[in-house]
Amino acid sequence: MIETKTTQHMALPEPTLRRLPWYLAYVKMLDRQHVVHVSSTQISKALSVDSSQIAKDLSFLNIRGKTRIGYEVHSLAQTLADFLGFTQHHRAVVIGVGSLGGALLRDVGLSQYGLNIVAGFDTNPSLVGSDIVGTPIYHIDRLAEWQHENKADIAILAVPVEHAQEVTDQVVDSGIKAIWNFTPVRIKTPADVTIANTSIYAHLAIIYNRMNANAEV
Amino acid sequence: MIETKTTQHMALPEPTLRRLPWYLAYVKMLDRQHVVHVSSTQISKALSVDSSQIAKDLSFLNIRGKTRIGYEVHSLAQTLADFLGFTQHHRAVVIGVGSLGGALLRDVGLSQYGLNIVAGFDTNPSLVGSDIVGTPIYHIDRLAEWQHENKADIAILAVPVEHAQEVTDQVVDSGIKAIWNFTPVRIKTPADVTIANTSIYAHLAIIYNRMNANAEV
Repeated sequence: MIETKTTQHMALPEPTLRRLPWYLAYVKMLDRQHVVHVSSTQISKALSVDSSQIAKDLSFLNIRGKTRIGYEVHSLAQTLADFLGFTQHHRAVVIGVGSLGGALLRDVGLSQYGLNIVAGFDTNPSLVGSDIVGTPIYHIDRLAEWQHENKADIAILAVPVEHAQEVTDQVVDSGIKAIWNFTPVRIKTPADVTIANTSIYAHLAIIYNRMNANAEV
Repeated sequence: MIETKTTQHMALPEPTLRRLPWYLAYVKMLDRQHVVHVSSTQISKALSVDSSQIAKDLSFLNIRGKTRIGYEVHSLAQTLADFLGFTQHHRAVVIGVGSLGGALLRDVGLSQYGLNIVAGFDTNPSLVGSDIVGTPIYHIDRLAEWQHENKADIAILAVPVEHAQEVTDQVVDSGIKAIWNFTPVRIKTPADVTIANTSIYAHLAIIYNRMNANAEV
């Protein structure tokens, strides 16, 4: 029955999912400063987000502030972190251990957001069989076999552009159901595979363009 | 006169700036495969973007395909890379050399997109005075003095949440006019400072949410 579906498992609007981590970062900071309550007006001022928008976003969590007092900071931080999945353990593999993939393998900060990278895959003979900060690197051809025994939730795709779709197909065949795509390629997958695109190079294009436009003003 | 403003220095719509790197990745791949011409219909099929949208996006570059033949692949790749600023040299500093900042310092791939990281800044005594893959790390208090002599274009912000605004103020005071913000904090700057936000943790929230929603279907 649709009514019993928890909000956690609803597909939330992407703008809401982008704002919730801002709220979390802010209330975690307040929590460290031992602030006990926070109003949506305060959050609104700190983050330049409309306060009715904040109330609407937070209503997805079934959390409500008290009149005049606002939200309880510590429990709001906890609820937000849980809701966003940051307190769970998600097992991930990095496919393509080049400069970006290697950097992600070394970013221990990701584990604080619920992401544990448990293996890397590549084709480079100088990498296969080695490890990076303790995480083993295997040959990509062993992915399906590895996945059968180890069950990763997420594949982080950081391969060269020309291999992006081919490797995506290997990931899909292995049974991994979510791909975090760091390549600038529009990869194609069956509908039941989740894709999130993070093209940091596209963000560079945005900065360069805005810098030039600003300099012209 | 507004008419003499080149399109390069126009503030382009963000969705266009997000799509142009997809086109670039695709035509660069075709170029490596020695394909000579490509039509917007072909690009459309490969990337699942409407072909009229592609023609509109590419019109910002003053580049037009020929009827029946399409675009010349090599020159389209070159024009796109130039237009996006990927063939220029932008000098950047990384502020906050923790796990993410350190990872960015090590990502040599960024230089292929026109970004040269020339220095890092931190407060950690075990980092200050050292270097990472040849890039020197200085104390954050030396930023203004360093910038006066070295003139970076972009500050990459990767500090802990609680220092994000304070360090942003130091960056602004130093005279750097663009900030690539990797923190989940909504930083505030004067209007003439360009900000681009890349919260990779927000993308994780999106993946987790979509995974759960997909698993429920």
